[in-house]
Amino acid sequence: MKHVETIYGIHAVRAMLTRHPERVVTVRLTDTRDDPRAREIEELARKSGRTVQRVDARSLKQTLGDVTHQGVVADIEPLPPWSEDDLLTALTSANDPLLLVLDGVQDPHNLGACLRTADACGALAVIVPKDRAAQLNPTARKVAVGAAESTPVVAVTNLARALKLLKDAGLWVVGADADAPKLAHEVDLKGGVVLVLGAEGSGLRQLTRQTCDFIVRLPQLGTVESLNVSVAAGMLLYEALRQRSAAGR
Amino acid sequence: MKHVETIYGIHAVRAMLTRHPERVVTVRLTDTRDDPRAREIEELARKSGRTVQRVDARSLKQTLGDVTHQGVVADIEPLPPWSEDDLLTALTSANDPLLLVLDGVQDPHNLGACLRTADACGALAVIVPKDRAAQLNPTARKVAVGAAESTPVVAVTNLARALKLLKDAGLWVVGADADAPKLAHEVDLKGGVVLVLGAEGSGLRQLTRQTCDFIVRLPQLGTVESLNVSVAAGMLLYEALRQRSAAGR
Repeated sequence: MKHVETIYGIHAVRAMLTRHPERVVTVRLTDTRDDPRAREIEELARKSGRTVQRVDARSLKQTLGDVTHQGVVADIEPLPPWSEDDLLTALTSANDPLLLVLDGVQDPHNLGACLRTADACGALAVIVPKDRAAQLNPTARKVAVGAAESTPVVAVTNLARALKLLKDAGLWVVGADADAPKLAHEVDLKGGVVLVLGAEGSGLRQLTRQTCDFIVRLPQLGTVESLNVSVAAGMLLYEALRQRSAAGR
Repeated sequence: MKHVETIYGIHAVRAMLTRHPERVVTVRLTDTRDDPRAREIEELARKSGRTVQRVDARSLKQTLGDVTHQGVVADIEPLPPWSEDDLLTALTSANDPLLLVLDGVQDPHNLGACLRTADACGALAVIVPKDRAAQLNPTARKVAVGAAESTPVVAVTNLARALKLLKDAGLWVVGADADAPKLAHEVDLKGGVVLVLGAEGSGLRQLTRQTCDFIVRLPQLGTVESLNVSVAAGMLLYEALRQRSAAGR
């Protein structure tokens, strides 16, 4: 039996049917949904020859628990993890890509939250070290609410080496640190950039920091030690998108 | 016996000793800490006549669990909740204040995460409706990692009425919505602003939306339905701070 992952919510299911219909195994709609948005999902699924089932809401609640599925669920072939080679290949056809690197984030909740944020901001991939860092486990997938099926995670053996490869590919590597002299908006993030965040508390590792082209800081006006890493990721990704939008890209 | 809250981490404890020494009941340092940062905490505490105790790390672990306390802990008098009147009074002496409003956020984790973010961004207060919304319970406090002791939460009976009072006080009310025509950076957030976020999924309530002066949207490029509310809060607060910094304030 093929392993499948389940995604839910109108937006997530429609996006998957539009972008990667070949990965959709089955679409399930609750039998009470008969509105334009549900019919659009149904039509998209039938057009690409996908199975559509009508189910009752209770059975969805039994399998999914208490989530906002909006009566629209899909079983899909999981996104295969990317290798470094996959990433480098994807870069050749990407226009000013945004990449997010998590240097030593241990908590799968934080990985999932970062993945969700990276997905919303259109990041090409999220890069994590293979060792001593949270990997894409069921907890991370759950917190990512479907983003694990659209934004690939690349686990690399040697992060500093991977960052150097990305620099060689023409990307700027920008790390975040509370003590950096520059603010994020003072650095040009309009081209292809790799945004690097360290673990909460300990921050960037020495070797990672040395590999960065720029180090920038994020707001730190309050009394708490640091921003949650997914919030910091959101701010940095937001800033990169803002600069692109302001420049008319 | 007086009710106390416990905060931890060098940054949080130092900030409390500097800003509100009168609220600190006891400072506890692990007996192995004897470095400049620990000595600074000790001196700050002694100067304002606070009790300093030396404890062993195991006893801290027993009471606090597995948190990054850095060997520095303080028991403090909790921040009393603010009434609407407290908020309006605080506004009279605040310079271009930033306020965060959570319209119907149900999950105490999300409230805690927003409080942490609001604190890091220097927000004056976080406003929530009294009914049908997460309140500042132990879960929210824990996720806020100390921010609940520095950034006040104002629970209001009638959110639309509170927003109108804030408008009368000269603040702009800016709501976030995925379908807004303008991006956050296209609206002037440099003056006193109230940033309003709705619940994940359902968004702003109708009456709240009608009360907003502007509605702006945040990045929504991916496949997931929406940003986590604390990430969205981080982006909006970041944008307000960026505009101020860019304007040299």
